[in-house]
Amino acid sequence: MPIVSDNELSRRRREIIAAARGCFARYGYEGATVTRLEEATGKTRGAIFHHFKDKEELFLAIAAEDAARQAEVVAEHGLIEVMRRLVRNPGSNDWYITRAEIVRKLRTDPCFETRWRVHQVVLDEAIHERLAHNAAMRDDVPIDVLQEYLTTVMEGLILKLASGEPPQRLEATLDLVEQSVRAPGVGK
Amino acid sequence: MPIVSDNELSRRRREIIAAARGCFARYGYEGATVTRLEEATGKTRGAIFHHFKDKEELFLAIAAEDAARQAEVVAEHGLIEVMRRLVRNPGSNDWYITRAEIVRKLRTDPCFETRWRVHQVVLDEAIHERLAHNAAMRDDVPIDVLQEYLTTVMEGLILKLASGEPPQRLEATLDLVEQSVRAPGVGK
Repeated sequence: MPIVSDNELSRRRREIIAAARGCFARYGYEGATVTRLEEATGKTRGAIFHHFKDKEELFLAIAAEDAARQAEVVAEHGLIEVMRRLVRNPGSNDWYITRAEIVRKLRTDPCFETRWRVHQVVLDEAIHERLAHNAAMRDDVPIDVLQEYLTTVMEGLILKLASGEPPQRLEATLDLVEQSVRAPGVGK
Repeated sequence: MPIVSDNELSRRRREIIAAARGCFARYGYEGATVTRLEEATGKTRGAIFHHFKDKEELFLAIAAEDAARQAEVVAEHGLIEVMRRLVRNPGSNDWYITRAEIVRKLRTDPCFETRWRVHQVVLDEAIHERLAHNAAMRDDVPIDVLQEYLTTVMEGLILKLASGEPPQRLEATLDLVEQSVRAPGVGK
């Protein structure tokens, strides 16, 4: 059996994640069957599940990758910038449709819910950090409320984009959101 | 064949709608099979589809009833009051999980999308009217933007509630939303 380097393993893992993302986006969580995941990745189920225990773990790995990437943007530019990028890059919204589709699973499958939240912690913490240390933020509203508010707007944005609403209309909404969380007198 | 009065027909229709709502909430749009709709309503498929052409029409009738009821609240108290009632009455959120579940259908089934939007017009118009005639609203942002903003928040709220998030945390968010759309110096 050939020895495979860590680098090569990691490369294969990333390849599977990228192809599986498109498959989940296209068919939904339930609709992305193992056969379709094989077709999308060009790999056998044996090869796929060598890297990920099961479909749930593969799905959560994609969600984790997203959360980590968004956390980086948040740390540098804030959550509203994450939303602006969502609006400006509608191609990425194909994947976000799965956010709506897993709502029932989040409610009814506590094990899935726990695993999902674990991956979201990195994003939640990045949002909290950013709000706590951004001098441009208003300080008359508790950080937890600002955070709840911004994440509610982001969920709404995702639901609208995933429903096929034209993204152009959402840019001005984000200007209003930005204004509503800023300290008075602080420019953009 | 006995003659059935219009009143009686309308009563039976409302009965089916009420029972079917619970069935859709519990099993989702796809999961609410005809057999389950029969069980939930205590009526045969013949009786159900005497009133509604098919499952889609039944589902849209429930959505239309909701939109009409929300439009009434909007006309009197505004959309934020609709959101406050959602947050305070988590029982109703069982149904709203279907909002997330039909996202893919809205994107991929233009006929369904058209029929869905028709029923939402009454709500959209009520929101627009209210924003246009409420003197407490800020006037430095176009009404369309305020409307897009408020409906985005509402979609986010629905997604969060449907995912099982505790509603208590969302009340303070709504205070912030309310403040952000009001004219400066106008009290609550």
